[in-house]
Amino acid sequence: MRTRSFWGWGWQDELPSQDERDQLTGLLSGFFADHPPRPAAYPSLDDIVLPEPAVAIPEVLAAFCSADKLDRAGHTYGKNYRDLVRGFSGDFSPAPDFVAYPENEEQIQALLAWAVAEGVTVVPYGGGTTVVEAVECSREEAPRHVTLDLGRMDRVLEVDQECLAARIQAGARGPVLQEQLAEHGLTFRHYPQSVEFSTLGGWIATRAGGHYATLYTHVDDFVESIRMVTPEGVMESRRLPGSGAGPSPDRMMIGSEGIFGVITEAWIRVQKPPVYRANASVKFGQFDDAVAACRALAQSGLYPTNCRLLDATEALINEVSGDFTHVLLLAFESSDHSLKPWMDRALEICAERKGRVATGPTFKEAGERSSSEGEGGQWRDAFFRAPYRQSAMVSLGMIADTFETAITWERFPALHAAVQEAVMGAMREHCGSGLLSCRFTHVYPDGPAPYYTFIAPGQEGKLLEQWYAIKKAAGDALIREGATITHHHAVGKLHRPWYEAQRPQLFGDVLKVIKGRLDPAGILNPNVLIRRDD
Amino acid sequence: MRTRSFWGWGWQDELPSQDERDQLTGLLSGFFADHPPRPAAYPSLDDIVLPEPAVAIPEVLAAFCSADKLDRAGHTYGKNYRDLVRGFSGDFSPAPDFVAYPENEEQIQALLAWAVAEGVTVVPYGGGTTVVEAVECSREEAPRHVTLDLGRMDRVLEVDQECLAARIQAGARGPVLQEQLAEHGLTFRHYPQSVEFSTLGGWIATRAGGHYATLYTHVDDFVESIRMVTPEGVMESRRLPGSGAGPSPDRMMIGSEGIFGVITEAWIRVQKPPVYRANASVKFGQFDDAVAACRALAQSGLYPTNCRLLDATEALINEVSGDFTHVLLLAFESSDHSLKPWMDRALEICAERKGRVATGPTFKEAGERSSSEGEGGQWRDAFFRAPYRQSAMVSLGMIADTFETAITWERFPALHAAVQEAVMGAMREHCGSGLLSCRFTHVYPDGPAPYYTFIAPGQEGKLLEQWYAIKKAAGDALIREGATITHHHAVGKLHRPWYEAQRPQLFGDVLKVIKGRLDPAGILNPNVLIRRDD
Repeated sequence: MRTRSFWGWGWQDELPSQDERDQLTGLLSGFFADHPPRPAAYPSLDDIVLPEPAVAIPEVLAAFCSADKLDRAGHTYGKNYRDLVRGFSGDFSPAPDFVAYPENEEQIQALLAWAVAEGVTVVPYGGGTTVVEAVECSREEAPRHVTLDLGRMDRVLEVDQECLAARIQAGARGPVLQEQLAEHGLTFRHYPQSVEFSTLGGWIATRAGGHYATLYTHVDDFVESIRMVTPEGVMESRRLPGSGAGPSPDRMMIGSEGIFGVITEAWIRVQKPPVYRANASVKFGQFDDAVAACRALAQSGLYPTNCRLLDATEALINEVSGDFTHVLLLAFESSDHSLKPWMDRALEICAERKGRVATGPTFKEAGERSSSEGEGGQWRDAFFRAPYRQSAMVSLGMIADTFETAITWERFPALHAAVQEAVMGAMREHCGSGLLSCRFTHVYPDGPAPYYTFIAPGQEGKLLEQWYAIKKAAGDALIREGATITHHHAVGKLHRPWYEAQRPQLFGDVLKVIKGRLDPAGILNPNVLIRRDD
Repeated sequence: MRTRSFWGWGWQDELPSQDERDQLTGLLSGFFADHPPRPAAYPSLDDIVLPEPAVAIPEVLAAFCSADKLDRAGHTYGKNYRDLVRGFSGDFSPAPDFVAYPENEEQIQALLAWAVAEGVTVVPYGGGTTVVEAVECSREEAPRHVTLDLGRMDRVLEVDQECLAARIQAGARGPVLQEQLAEHGLTFRHYPQSVEFSTLGGWIATRAGGHYATLYTHVDDFVESIRMVTPEGVMESRRLPGSGAGPSPDRMMIGSEGIFGVITEAWIRVQKPPVYRANASVKFGQFDDAVAACRALAQSGLYPTNCRLLDATEALINEVSGDFTHVLLLAFESSDHSLKPWMDRALEICAERKGRVATGPTFKEAGERSSSEGEGGQWRDAFFRAPYRQSAMVSLGMIADTFETAITWERFPALHAAVQEAVMGAMREHCGSGLLSCRFTHVYPDGPAPYYTFIAPGQEGKLLEQWYAIKKAAGDALIREGATITHHHAVGKLHRPWYEAQRPQLFGDVLKVIKGRLDPAGILNPNVLIRRDD
């Protein structure tokens, strides 16, 4: 059995090797000659000291709980930049007292009942891949707290071939549910960057964004019904393809980030595997032209599966293209029909905005093996490797993080300029220099979802201060310019100040009264999404 | 200025003429020879007696309120069967004390403040086309109650051509907002059967279903942001193409049926008018084959604009087809591209399930005038005339009503059989005989939205009792078989018992605490969606 890194991204044995780190060091030294990387060895669990547990595992929960060092250390943080830096530097002060691994709802109910009776805080945990500090809890926030890891509840319980739907337990990680669906000839087609570790329940609780660039952008769109265990009982919505009966109960649970209850399972709309594919990449000399093409594609009714625009910097650092053009990765997929008319029209739309086809279009028809995916495949490899690279960057003393948003087309140019000014300015001020790149992960008829990556040299002992100055400059710009603080990374504790500025004031009060009804003792995930006691 | 009928559907001068009623009498006599129609004259406002107002218009609201007889009578009921029968028979006992026609939010706030201070109930009112008794209030429920008609707030306030979005006041009726959008070369493409009278705010408050058979089935999908005035202040969501920041505030307001606040305006995603169209109708000998074709189309990724299956009875009574086949009306539309590949593949899918093309396919390309729409056009005319015909049926002593739902494909055959047994059984038991027809209004990858129409001969003095027996048999069957009590007609007071059985119990409690926060005095729409005082 493979071991997850207790501090960094993913599998311990997949963390970048010394060779890979040397290569990265060389690359970064080129960008930041004045402040080159400062490589340090990865930490070892033996060197870590955890606080003594404040509460012991009670007899009644003993069968499915653990206070082992690796369990506690591995569940202390999520995986954002601050988490990685703290883990790398050996600070595990917010470690949970123990970790529960329930195998069924009865065990979850037993844990919650014990926690309510004892006044112990419970933090629901899927894959622990949060980048918004949604699975950590300090001693100040809760002197006694435990983590509820859903990982053992990972089965596909039922498959409805006629409806293309499946009932799946919340703890199923991407590859685990995918493997089970494949046995039925089905697939989920929802691949957040975290997919190898993140879980169905985590996706639903955080409104995860996935594979499709249009139409089915968030996991929200795949949810047919949800089952959630709250301290006040079970809430389960009816399985329906659509309904007009009152406000949607699902939409209250989707995005609730573990503050109302623990999502235990859901009926999900799944897909037949694509039989037909069409792929192409298109290069643009001007970013504005590329944006205009994305807008026209999003409003065309063609609904591309992939419509991922990489600006020149993004294309460069992901080794997709080195000629300083902006690259649009376009793909269509279908289990039903050949996609030539779709791709032909999409490329016409690009050509009308000065886009030059760089690779493709390639078409895979029924019965054919997949053709080369060109830049698209190169991108995908870099995409799933990126979180490992971020952990390596931390070990090199670098600052490297991402933030993402969505905004209407009309306001995008002003937002983009404001973000560049604010983030580049903050990097110059606090780090001397920095790199900022942008891509579109999803596009809507009324606006894009831009995703930014920033990389800057860090100063020893000041990394988190420098990082937060950049993060704050970014968040402030997003809110000031009318964007959202998150399109699919969620709110957690990290984004809460900007979320409070963004959401209607009264809606914050509404969330509090809902929490008061479902979790009256306030044991679940304090200070995530809404502040406790104010 | 045209006058709305104070008791029946729509414009008074469009109510079926004596000739049309005679024709209908003849048709119905054929179906129900044993219990022929009993024509009676339409009622006159002069013959109606309204209860004395329990509260007078206060000075501070006088500028925009009316206690005129026509205003009060016309706002007493919505337009469901029970409403029509009561109006036709001259029972206007639940008439509001007066009707407010605010022109701006300040006037709404003044009305709500007065109502809270005086303990007067307020019923928000859009077009008054509810078929679920959501705009009426009895003297027992509220000894003093007034109606808040949004009709004077009907302007398109802002248009964003780049995002294809518009900020529209909630009181805009379909044709009124359409006319204003047309000045900007845009269109809404949302046509519920009530579109001539129903309003944007009403659509949002009730999750109205519209024009598109796939993808954008409910108005929910067009909403970019909402502004709502509650007794506790204004709630306004941020205009965003997509967001992952917490549970959606919009989705809490959408479907809230006036119990949390008054929707005053919304940013709506609108469309460019279709330039390309493709139309066809396909006939099936077996209903099961037609259902299978709809399922395959819904799962194909072709996203037809129209995919309306009429069973043989439905096709017959709407004069679309008289050969006892089941008719599928298929259409695609686009402002961007020719639709031949889409329609060709859709017709292949139908042919694979024994569907025979009856008319078309016809294609309208850019610059061409619209081609004949065949059965589709015939259907549309009958569709918009149907509510007028229902009013005429009431004047003939008939029972005529509809109900609608959504269910997964896998459960549809059992549901359809159960509905037929229950409703035909109830009609036989209570009316001697009856007609029941079915169509699909919308289709999803995981299930259809079936819409049923029933017609039966009524007995003098027993109409409402007979009608409710049929309605109850239908509602009970829907809930028992796992369907929803409504796909797009909403809950109101009529559907509340079944809604309570359908929604998660805890979610009912959640709705109550939300209402407690936003409308603590409980002045808004009592007993709609949730029961007061239990």
